Parts: sequence; C-alpha cells; structure tokens
Amino acid sequence: MKFDRKDLPVGTPVVGMVGGGQLARMTQETAVALGIQLRVLAEGPAVSAAQAVADAPVGDYKDPETVRRFAAECDVVTFDHEHVPTELLHALEADGVKVHPGPDALVHAQDKAVMRARLDTFAAPAPAHQVVGTAADVADFAKRVGGFPIILKTTRGGYDGKGVWFVDGPDDPQVATAFGSGVPILAEEKVDFVRELSAIVARSPHGQAVAYPIVESVQRDGICVEVTAPAPGLDPAKAAQAQQTALRIAGELGVVGVLAVEMFEARDGRLLVNELAMRPHNTGHWSIDGAVTSQFENHLRAVLDLPLGSPAARAPYTVMVNVLGGDVEDMHRGLLHCLARDPGLKVHFYGKSVQPGRKVGHVTAYGDDLEETRSRARHAAAYLTGTIDE
Amino acid sequence: MKFDRKDLPVGTPVVGMVGGGQLARMTQETAVALGIQLRVLAEGPAVSAAQAVADAPVGDYKDPETVRRFAAECDVVTFDHEHVPTELLHALEADGVKVHPGPDALVHAQDKAVMRARLDTFAAPAPAHQVVGTAADVADFAKRVGGFPIILKTTRGGYDGKGVWFVDGPDDPQVATAFGSGVPILAEEKVDFVRELSAIVARSPHGQAVAYPIVESVQRDGICVEVTAPAPGLDPAKAAQAQQTALRIAGELGVVGVLAVEMFEARDGRLLVNELAMRPHNTGHWSIDGAVTSQFENHLRAVLDLPLGSPAARAPYTVMVNVLGGDVEDMHRGLLHCLARDPGLKVHFYGKSVQPGRKVGHVTAYGDDLEETRSRARHAAAYLTGTIDE
Repeated sequence: MKFDRKDLPVGTPVVGMVGGGQLARMTQETAVALGIQLRVLAEGPAVSAAQAVADAPVGDYKDPETVRRFAAECDVVTFDHEHVPTELLHALEADGVKVHPGPDALVHAQDKAVMRARLDTFAAPAPAHQVVGTAADVADFAKRVGGFPIILKTTRGGYDGKGVWFVDGPDDPQVATAFGSGVPILAEEKVDFVRELSAIVARSPHGQAVAYPIVESVQRDGICVEVTAPAPGLDPAKAAQAQQTALRIAGELGVVGVLAVEMFEARDGRLLVNELAMRPHNTGHWSIDGAVTSQFENHLRAVLDLPLGSPAARAPYTVMVNVLGGDVEDMHRGLLHCLARDPGLKVHFYGKSVQPGRKVGHVTAYGDDLEETRSRARHAAAYLTGTIDE
Repeated sequence: MKFDRKDLPVGTPVVGMVGGGQLARMTQETAVALGIQLRVLAEGPAVSAAQAVADAPVGDYKDPETVRRFAAECDVVTFDHEHVPTELLHALEADGVKVHPGPDALVHAQDKAVMRARLDTFAAPAPAHQVVGTAADVADFAKRVGGFPIILKTTRGGYDGKGVWFVDGPDDPQVATAFGSGVPILAEEKVDFVRELSAIVARSPHGQAVAYPIVESVQRDGICVEVTAPAPGLDPAKAAQAQQTALRIAGELGVVGVLAVEMFEARDGRLLVNELAMRPHNTGHWSIDGAVTSQFENHLRAVLDLPLGSPAARAPYTVMVNVLGGDVEDMHRGLLHCLARDPGLKVHFYGKSVQPGRKVGHVTAYGDDLEETRSRARHAAAYLTGTIDE
C-alpha cells in the first residue's frame, strides 16, 4: 500500500476495488469527497481508474495470492466488475476479509442460470427460461414458449451484448455458435417489450436499503446508449412495483452495495427481470449529476455500512447518453463546441482511448423539459463521438 | 511524470497544481470527471491531495528547478495557494510555460499593498488604507480615518486571520508585533460592517467570465466558518454591483481561473473590497453540491481555456459549514450519526489529521428553507467537530 495507515487521518476507511475500469474511476470522485482512501487492483498501470487514484497496484484478479495481498491492506473489498472467481472470494471471506457484495450474492450476477433458478424460488417475475445442452433442448424450449425466435445466452462471462444470440429457428447457425462457446447455455423467451427499465437499489450489511427512481434505458447492439430518469410516463404503481422487486432481490440474495436490476416492460404490462449487476451500473450514471446521492457514493456507503444517502432526483428529468468511440480520436477537442453550446452540460470522460463502440465517456443533462433535455444530451454525445459536426 | 502521454487518451490535458492542500484535492474530483490528468506538486508524500491523485511528486515550490521540472510535464500550471515567488513564475513564463493565473495577476493576491494600489487606479471600492513604516505613521493614519481602532496587516504571507492585528490605540503592543513581523505593513480602516460577502468569478484567457451568486460568509477568529448561497436578503442591485466589481477586478488584473473577492457590506451601504484570492476559495465550496458547475470545475475549464459552465445555484439555499479540528480525533466515527440523521447531507473530508482549529472538512446542505438548511449544516459540522453529541 502506498500509504501507511499512520499517514492517513485516524479512522480513514480504506476501500479496495477489484478492477480499474470507469466504475472504479467514478467511485474515486466520491471517495475523495468523503475522505475514503480508494485502492484499485488494476489490470495495468494506466487503466481508467489507475489514472485517478494514488494507490493502484497492478495484478491479476484471478490469482488468489495477488487478491489476498491486495485485500490485506483494505477494510473492505468490492468490485468494478463481476469476474473474480467465486471460490477465490470464498477463500478471502474464510480469511476474515470483508467482501461486499459477498460471493454468495455475487454468484447471481456471475451466473445467469444460478440467478434464474434463485429468482424462481421467490417468484420474481422473469421471462420463461431453461438451461439447454443440445439443439433438441433448444427446439423443445421454443415449442414451450410458443415458437421461435428465442434467445440463447452464455450463463457466465457475457457483457455489453457479447454472449447473447437471437435464434430464429432450429437450424439457425447461432445455435452452434452458442454451444461452441464452451460455457453452459441458458435459453430465454424473447419478450415482446415496449421498453427497457432499470431499478437501482443500494443495500447495507444490516439491511438498510434505498431505491433510485426507475429509469428508462435504451440499448443498441446490446450496449446501453441512453438513460432517462425517471422513466417518462411510467405508471407510479408500476414504478413502485419495480422498486419493490429490486429491493426484494437485494434482500433475498443478501446483496451489499449497489444492485442494478434491468427489466423489460412487456407489451402485456408485465415487468420482467432481464439481468442483474452487483455494482454501480451504466443505468445509474445519471445519478452523479442528477440525484442527491450518486450510486457511487451509496455503493461506498453501503460497503462501509454507513447510512445511505437520499436517492431522490434533483431535477424533473435527467438524461444520460453514453459517448461511444467513433471516428474522432481526440475526445477533448469536441469539448470546446459542446461546452460553449450548453453551459449546463456535464461531461464525463473515462481516460480510455477511442476504439469503435467502446464506452469512453458519458454526458448528462438535466432540466424541466424532457425533449429539450434529451436533445441536449444526445447532441453532445453525437458531437463528441463525431457522428454530427455542428 | 507517472504517466507518459502515450499512456493517456489522445488530447488528454495535463494540469499541474502547485500545492497539495484541500483545494487541489477537491479539484481532483472534477478533473477525474472531465478526463483531465491532474498532477500535484506536493509538500509531502501523504498530504491532502497526494492521497487523491495518481501523480504527486514531492518538492519545494520555492525551488526554481523543482518547479521547472514539474511544469515541463504539464500543459498549464495553476495553484492551490498563492505562495510561489512571483519571480519564479516570471521565469517559468519566459520558458514558455502557461501559468494561470499569471504572475502579473497573482501578485495582487500575494501582496496586499500592491493589490490596494492597483484597485485604487480603477476606483474599486475599498476601505481607507496606507502602507505604514513607523508607529507615527500608524497614528497619522488613525487620525485620517477618524481614530482608532484600525487594522494592521502584513502585506504578504497572511492567511486565516494570521498576519492581521486589531489596534486599539497608539500604544497598543500589537503595533510592535506587526512591525516585528519583518514584512511591510498595511494599515486599513476598520470598517463598520453588517456582514461579509464574497463574490466568486471565473475568467478564461480570452476573457469569458462567469459570476457565481453572491454569498454571505461568517468568519470567526479570521477563519471562514459558514457560507450561505445566495446571501440572504441581499438587495439584487447590490448583488449585481458586487458581481460587477469582481468581474471588473478579474478583467483589469488579467486573472485566469477563479477569483474570490471578499467584501464588507458596510453599515452605510457601501460594498468594500477586503481581500482577493486567485484560486478556488472557501467561500465557493458550496458550489460543489449547490451549483450547476462547481468553482473547481470552472477553475479547470478556465485555465485550460475551455468554455465556462453555468454558475447558477441548483437550490434556493445552500449552506456550507466548515468542519474545524476539535477534540474528536476520528472524524469518520461521527458520520454514522450525521448521515443517518440527514440523508441529504453532503460531507467532505480533506484527508487531514485533526489539529485544533484546522480546516479538516466541510458539510453542505441545500433546501428551500433557509433556517432549516442552516440548522442541518450547522448541526452536522458541530457534531463532527465534537462540540455537540446528539
């Protein structure tokens, strides 16, 4: 550790975050404010969060000894991603390390089959689903849900649309691709939905929990591109139901920290759980500028068992649009135009080099008028990405 | 430099800040968001900002070679404090380094005699003042302003009430103390004021400027303890006048970055300039949680010549109260109570060990009702300091 405890003020908590991506980087903004020392176990010396924290040892998060050494200097260990092996985390806990969320909770964000099976035990609303091992299983499942198309997903390791296949029929070559991935495969009903929603909650070890306003998220090619808080026109009863579902899942699974529950608002009115994430989530980035307490602050508070902060929105509408890598390599040049055009715009860059489609930042606008706020955020993201030039 | 330019995304600006105090630390919060790489020239390896940035070489800001080496890796150099020798900054500029604010502006925040003389050239409203060299000068000055008490100040090096003496008569021992300080002394009229105000503006190299709402500040023993934004009950015409005075000063002096103009609201209605600071200022900390763009973000934008952000307040009232070191050594323990009591409270700790009277953090509350908002912020600060226990 770069800082000996004696160099820091008495009582300074040290939070270790495994993974040096943009979630760790954004966590640092609030850690600095709260006087929390954030350590990051980084994938390399100059990854996103390593540029932003004082203490970012480089190491392999799959190596037990590396993670153990890292954790030894922290009051609590938490995560920028869900890829640390469950058994490694069990070993850490056995050593007395506080791990939040713990492996028994985290496994539900790591393994979609485990998640589906567990949610079924308390009847959380979900699309029809089944683990499939052969093309015949796939055909049987399709028959059960009224026919193709259906969806196949890797149970482990997918993200941002990777590890998901839309299957149009029994002979679709995607079936072979899915089974060729070497990971058990989950089949899911293709839900006819009107939009996607996300419920973000934060929960403390002793069970205090807060629920953020339900947001609408727009995905393109499996990547979240836009989030509106709150979800426009959502029936308040349905919003409350979505929050309750997320709080129930957090409680049943014993989540500590932020839990994001992505849901489908189905055309038939049902709200169905799509995915879980147990960390600050892209659909919660709006909260940095748009809520009293950001998801990153509440994640830190939760893993340290501090009282949680208000998740209330500060403006009638907040819209976040991701900045994806495009043709423009220098993201900073576009700032001149965007900031001059909109003095209320909030820009967030992740310290990541541009690659096509890579999330390199996001912009947030807030205001009283939905369409105007959306158009401000969309314009800025498109300009920074380079898809428009004025 | 810890990061080679090639390790950072194309176009990433590198801002060097001389001094590793809480202002640099709070600047880091916004630098991380904006994808700006902040380097800090730190007084020690574990000072406030060094705990929060990836790149904080330790060095003496009075040593030309140290500062030159530091600046060589930065796009622009700016300051956490005003103590870097003017001649050293002139030498940097001669080497082609961008220094913001530049030495010709900064000298007005470093030397009160220079500041007073310069402000007189464009008739900025000020208390009567005079450089004094002897006890006889002091007596003459007192006669000119209608008698004692008067104030003596060191022209250089004072801060937080240090280097300021209230003199009750010609034989007051404070006169000898002031002249014994070894620094030229400025005598000032003791203004009969109803309250202190502060005008914060930010200005870019090409002259764009924004003015924050005028705030009321409360000082105790020369230390800022509480700030209310906007200053309650301030006549709008007077508020506009205070903003214009600050904008005028920023323009006349060629300030780049944040300028704080502390003022007296005199009982006779005049607004008189008390002190200048050319950096983010304690009376602007409310803007982190209370304004669309914080003073730290606008300081960074200004020194990088990026368009400035809106300084508008986000709530009817925002109150910031400093957390000063008291009897409680562990600042973090009090958080449990404060955060549980007030889910909307924003707490900022500076990573500084408690010493009596030392600024170790601040709390901010915002809301619709002035008295309630004030009472929330005052309670939290008092509880964290240890002056109340429930």
